[in-house]
Amino acid sequence: MIRIAIDCMGGDFGLPVTVPAAVMVANKCTDVHFLLVGDAPQVEKALQQSSPSRPDQFTIVHAEEVITMEDSVEVALRRKRKSSMHEALHAVQDQRADACVSAGNTGALMAVARFILKTLDGIDRPAIATALPNQLGRGTTVLDLGANVDCTPEHLLQFAIMGSALVQAVEQIEHPKVGLLNIGHESIKGNEVVKKTSELLQATPLNFIGNVEGDDIFKGTAHVVVCDGFVGNVLLKSVEGLAKMMSGMLKQSFLRSFYSKLAALIAKPVISSFREKMDNRRYNGAALLGLKGVVFKSHGSADVLAFGFAIERAYMAVQSQLLQKTITGIEAITQSHHDKSCL
Amino acid sequence: MIRIAIDCMGGDFGLPVTVPAAVMVANKCTDVHFLLVGDAPQVEKALQQSSPSRPDQFTIVHAEEVITMEDSVEVALRRKRKSSMHEALHAVQDQRADACVSAGNTGALMAVARFILKTLDGIDRPAIATALPNQLGRGTTVLDLGANVDCTPEHLLQFAIMGSALVQAVEQIEHPKVGLLNIGHESIKGNEVVKKTSELLQATPLNFIGNVEGDDIFKGTAHVVVCDGFVGNVLLKSVEGLAKMMSGMLKQSFLRSFYSKLAALIAKPVISSFREKMDNRRYNGAALLGLKGVVFKSHGSADVLAFGFAIERAYMAVQSQLLQKTITGIEAITQSHHDKSCL
Repeated sequence: MIRIAIDCMGGDFGLPVTVPAAVMVANKCTDVHFLLVGDAPQVEKALQQSSPSRPDQFTIVHAEEVITMEDSVEVALRRKRKSSMHEALHAVQDQRADACVSAGNTGALMAVARFILKTLDGIDRPAIATALPNQLGRGTTVLDLGANVDCTPEHLLQFAIMGSALVQAVEQIEHPKVGLLNIGHESIKGNEVVKKTSELLQATPLNFIGNVEGDDIFKGTAHVVVCDGFVGNVLLKSVEGLAKMMSGMLKQSFLRSFYSKLAALIAKPVISSFREKMDNRRYNGAALLGLKGVVFKSHGSADVLAFGFAIERAYMAVQSQLLQKTITGIEAITQSHHDKSCL
Repeated sequence: MIRIAIDCMGGDFGLPVTVPAAVMVANKCTDVHFLLVGDAPQVEKALQQSSPSRPDQFTIVHAEEVITMEDSVEVALRRKRKSSMHEALHAVQDQRADACVSAGNTGALMAVARFILKTLDGIDRPAIATALPNQLGRGTTVLDLGANVDCTPEHLLQFAIMGSALVQAVEQIEHPKVGLLNIGHESIKGNEVVKKTSELLQATPLNFIGNVEGDDIFKGTAHVVVCDGFVGNVLLKSVEGLAKMMSGMLKQSFLRSFYSKLAALIAKPVISSFREKMDNRRYNGAALLGLKGVVFKSHGSADVLAFGFAIERAYMAVQSQLLQKTITGIEAITQSHHDKSCL
């Protein structure tokens, strides 16, 4: 049985999204059990409205407080210790749940998760990873996406280990190709941190393929692309912004005249298939890596379908032993460092 | 008369692109004169083939060597001093030309331009700026795009001044809104360099609107977005990669079946209008800013139309006195610093 704690109150919409999404996943996966964390009477009501086929797949856990999207990290961390986010993470810490999924505010979730679960041995800083769609029809996992704005080469090396373990676990790829995000493929390119990271990565057992550039993410050159959180966050928001603009313009083009509206009618199935392929809801669910527990963060504005995808990613991560794979990955690197120092 | 020196041999295609593009612009703008720099007999032949309406708009300047896309910066700088790139830049230095346009390799162009023209007083490092299309149907100017991988707050401040002057000159906007690229709008966000830059920018007469995020580039929140060259380069290549993938997928969707091919036929004018709006050739022409001369860099793979746009941007920059506006901008900042230190 895979037990997942859901922060039912988090995100822009809270209960009307989180509870139906959990029910949707429960109907699909019979070996999942949900801890629905939030204001008990409200959660109960939302659960009944979603009419689950097997109500025994759900346990409601009461939480008095809610961390809003506007709450600062300090407020989230110190003043709202009885929040649904705290309770959901405590369930993971107490081993009542194998994973936690929240659509709550990213800064707060990272801080509270780190405070409650602590980081894995050998990891200095947790990171946030997500998959972006590539032209091979798969996803390229990129990290860090904003948890760490100033990174040392050692941090980036740890991101590479964690990202590699995530892809091994969630995508079942044995030796994921790891690329280092840089401004050219040549090893002389980039800033000092990146150059040093490249040296470190070459000395590991990871499948490091060298420097990659921004467009390689969409070409699918590597399974894992490593960068610092400043670069990753700018990149993520830029591509989201461009995708939104392009979709909007395509729509506008079809709405312009009588002829174009007619064309839209005829092209509708084609446009829908295109939209489906580009649908970023399919890639919802960023992993908070490097913690002593599995935590996934959904987009705050996720709908039921998108939140469901985030839950499924958490489910797959538990099923394929993400945590154990990360620990093994760290040990392998530590071991290879140790072996080298003994020589 | 606006005199533009064209590095005719640069880029992936050289003469078959650069010369017809110059002829195209000359036919449109009667007050332009071109120095066509390259292997004289070959340039002569290409010019004749393009049948210019007024051949007196062109002077051919012979250059023995060509800097290839593969040449290292060192080779370009030291071993190929008789290249078309060098000669075109010398024409600007000797005031035989008001601007230079090249599709040659970026690293080489920046290094050679800096060596020959030198940087403006008050500017430590030149930067590369280009416009990305935004949903307002205009362009957002972003810099630096890769000339400077490690930047201090002072460098970023200088980029803001130069970017502001570029938008004033090329887009005729009196007080361009300047945004600082960051991972959140709040002033406490970001790394130390960005926080310090924000303080510096607030103390200038620039129209600084605070932090912007990646998606703001496409929303058109600011006219100028400032970042270091590492972030800018990753961003540029990422969005280029995504745009390419999305266009490719749209095409694929329309080619999948008999029905979709029929739909494509009917939707063709609509898709064409969409493609035209998204056509990045319209935004070709990156400015090398902070030099004692106007230099524009075209995409290496530009076709005639795209290279023509790069020439037109250079033309507009000269016409609207980019260089003078940049110098005035630097002086205003220096003055305001000086005034403050006197208080």
